[in-house]
Amino acid sequence: MSVGDPRDVVALKRDGKAVPEVELRAFVLAYGRGEVGDDLAAAFLMAAYIRGLSAGETLALTRAMVDSGGTMTLEGISRPTVDKHSTGGVADGVTLVFAPVAAAMGLAVAKLSGRGLGHTGGTLDKLESIPGLRTDLTPEDMRRQVEDVGCAVAAQSPDLVPADGALYALRDATATVASIPLIAASVMSKKLCVGTDLILLDVKAGSGAFMKTPRDAGELARACTDLAAGWGRRARVAVTDMSQPLGEAVGNALDVAEAVDVLSGGGQGRLRELTLQFAQQAGEALLGMDANEARASAEDAISSGRARKTFARMIEAQGGDPRVTDEPWSVLPRAPVVTPLVSDRSGVLARIDAEEIGRAAVDLGAGRKRKGDPIDPSTGIVFRARIGDRLDLGAEIGEVHARDEDAGRAAARRVLDTLTVGDDAVEPPPLVFGWTDSGPPEGAP
Amino acid sequence: MSVGDPRDVVALKRDGKAVPEVELRAFVLAYGRGEVGDDLAAAFLMAAYIRGLSAGETLALTRAMVDSGGTMTLEGISRPTVDKHSTGGVADGVTLVFAPVAAAMGLAVAKLSGRGLGHTGGTLDKLESIPGLRTDLTPEDMRRQVEDVGCAVAAQSPDLVPADGALYALRDATATVASIPLIAASVMSKKLCVGTDLILLDVKAGSGAFMKTPRDAGELARACTDLAAGWGRRARVAVTDMSQPLGEAVGNALDVAEAVDVLSGGGQGRLRELTLQFAQQAGEALLGMDANEARASAEDAISSGRARKTFARMIEAQGGDPRVTDEPWSVLPRAPVVTPLVSDRSGVLARIDAEEIGRAAVDLGAGRKRKGDPIDPSTGIVFRARIGDRLDLGAEIGEVHARDEDAGRAAARRVLDTLTVGDDAVEPPPLVFGWTDSGPPEGAP
Repeated sequence: MSVGDPRDVVALKRDGKAVPEVELRAFVLAYGRGEVGDDLAAAFLMAAYIRGLSAGETLALTRAMVDSGGTMTLEGISRPTVDKHSTGGVADGVTLVFAPVAAAMGLAVAKLSGRGLGHTGGTLDKLESIPGLRTDLTPEDMRRQVEDVGCAVAAQSPDLVPADGALYALRDATATVASIPLIAASVMSKKLCVGTDLILLDVKAGSGAFMKTPRDAGELARACTDLAAGWGRRARVAVTDMSQPLGEAVGNALDVAEAVDVLSGGGQGRLRELTLQFAQQAGEALLGMDANEARASAEDAISSGRARKTFARMIEAQGGDPRVTDEPWSVLPRAPVVTPLVSDRSGVLARIDAEEIGRAAVDLGAGRKRKGDPIDPSTGIVFRARIGDRLDLGAEIGEVHARDEDAGRAAARRVLDTLTVGDDAVEPPPLVFGWTDSGPPEGAP
Repeated sequence: MSVGDPRDVVALKRDGKAVPEVELRAFVLAYGRGEVGDDLAAAFLMAAYIRGLSAGETLALTRAMVDSGGTMTLEGISRPTVDKHSTGGVADGVTLVFAPVAAAMGLAVAKLSGRGLGHTGGTLDKLESIPGLRTDLTPEDMRRQVEDVGCAVAAQSPDLVPADGALYALRDATATVASIPLIAASVMSKKLCVGTDLILLDVKAGSGAFMKTPRDAGELARACTDLAAGWGRRARVAVTDMSQPLGEAVGNALDVAEAVDVLSGGGQGRLRELTLQFAQQAGEALLGMDANEARASAEDAISSGRARKTFARMIEAQGGDPRVTDEPWSVLPRAPVVTPLVSDRSGVLARIDAEEIGRAAVDLGAGRKRKGDPIDPSTGIVFRARIGDRLDLGAEIGEVHARDEDAGRAAARRVLDTLTVGDDAVEPPPLVFGWTDSGPPEGAP
């Protein structure tokens, strides 16, 4: 269809009226082709931010974003396929553990990932801390590796959803990032363009996440499951806690070492538990298991050592040194200075500003403030205290891995300053606030 | 002050919060310097469109727009100075008549004007249909002419309110034109940058105007008087009817001929009456006259022939042929084809789509669809019927001045099709819905 005057689309949304799907689609595709300028697109984004987008509009936007580029099919893969994505948090290394666990359960994990930005880390950056490891896999490499090994984690190809890249940059430039329908369209367009049987999504809520409350995160989770259902795809979406870092490691090499620890049967904490819950959901949805069977299968993948072996095979297939799964620090880069993080107060840990801990790690070199910044994979923070823990003055609650003493001391100070310590007992936050499910796609058995 | 992150300004407006004046000012000035891009400015305009701007924010925006360029002072002029502006209508030739009438009353009229765009005509285009007439006066030319003749109408200099030109183009491109605070800031920035003692504003309401209802027009009028009061300037603002063309001529040379007719004591209709009302307001505000004295002074300016003579002197001073005020059609360009406009129905004229008549004139060549398009000053429409008139089948109600027969017939058809004719008597709309006054500026006697 012809786009007509694209300002008419913007005027409808401006006035709080419904934009017909065919017109919204034409508008987004015209933007992708450069026929609608950034100025008019920015006006649309602001109108959409303020007025909202209906489920139908969000679906039309998402479809147009996907259709702005290519798609990635996974035909020829003999196992059920699953993708897993997190909206971004601090110390969120679930993907590193989930991929080999699910593969060891008999699933195929095809994961396209992005790089870290701002206070949240990126799976690609973490993996690339392993010397030699490449993430620039071709679709064909990816399919072959998924079939052979059971899992692959690669960089998103620039020809997938190019409109998302352009729109995301524009949202960042125009104060229109924090819109639930726009976030849902951005997140899901990158998942729906890859033809997996199941999409697992982890929507983070709390001080270290974009969504600060479980209520907002729940709204985003529903917007995402609505998109999957409207598309005829299966998605299971968790709203999980990000009022404190999920794992203990906030960095890159540090995260890989922590993932190896969990895959080796260590790390009985939140990171292990959340990974097992995602693996359980995948087993239920794709392998015909009930909850107990799926949980047992996931635990067995770890305790049998198969998941760790799968991780080694994946790393090797992507050019990395697989010995990292035996002795991580014989392979991973180490920061020159490790400063202990020592509690300067006694009391019960009541609140953590997880975003600030993420930012402190960025300033150590572990993340990037601007797209394209280089990172230092060796640096970061290990933070072991959890909300509700009793801290004693002088107790070691973690470490800072830094390039020099000054940077280490400064980061330690920042982390300690984000902690609120009190006298009263504090109930730890739940790990998972809830799950939503798109339901089986139409036509499925 | 530093602008900080200009996205913060946009985020405040996006969330419906007040933007501190100093921050709004910094944002607009940064836009003027090219430090804020069109994308972020477009997002701001959309947020302002939807959320509105308070009186204080509108004043801060207007001040920043004025401060983006130079100002024009009128020192050294011995008479009280007045500016007059219309928000744009069809057959609105008031300025052409008002300027010499007010000058003949003892006032000085310094009028910077724009060109026609879309369905509304522009005073500069009308004047330039007089062979030889120039409107590119320097500020010094303008001051001298105002002092010598009493009136001058010139093109707005590009160094006055440059931010308005940029913002207006951006609003046009981003579906954010029809916002009352943004319109008020645009209109008043161009008036406040010229140092006159009185600003007269004609806010049009109806089918031929941007504001379709007297209520919206009244809101715009109040926004404009608020701006004048906040600035410490005097403004009187009328809301006037544009449910039908104001005068009879919709074109350029046709308008000049109609203005000469009114200045010669003809045209007892709406154009003459509205001009006299503006002249009366100016006499009251600036010459210490009461309403009756001011009205009589304005009528005398016409009946004595002094206004017509002043018009001739103004035209001559600007390089045009002054004989146009004696025998217009001996000087003005004539269209090759004049097609009579003949009523195709009998009944009472109930409704006119004045905007459509304006558009028909544009298509004849009398106006421009896009900035910079050339115009044909000879073409246009004369339309004599008025709401409430009884039309008889076959009666001549006007003429179309066209470049060829086909164009003339097509325009005649379009004009007739815009008319709604019924059986019942129809009350003609009022000419003026009301006046608002900023009150004397603070500190004035």
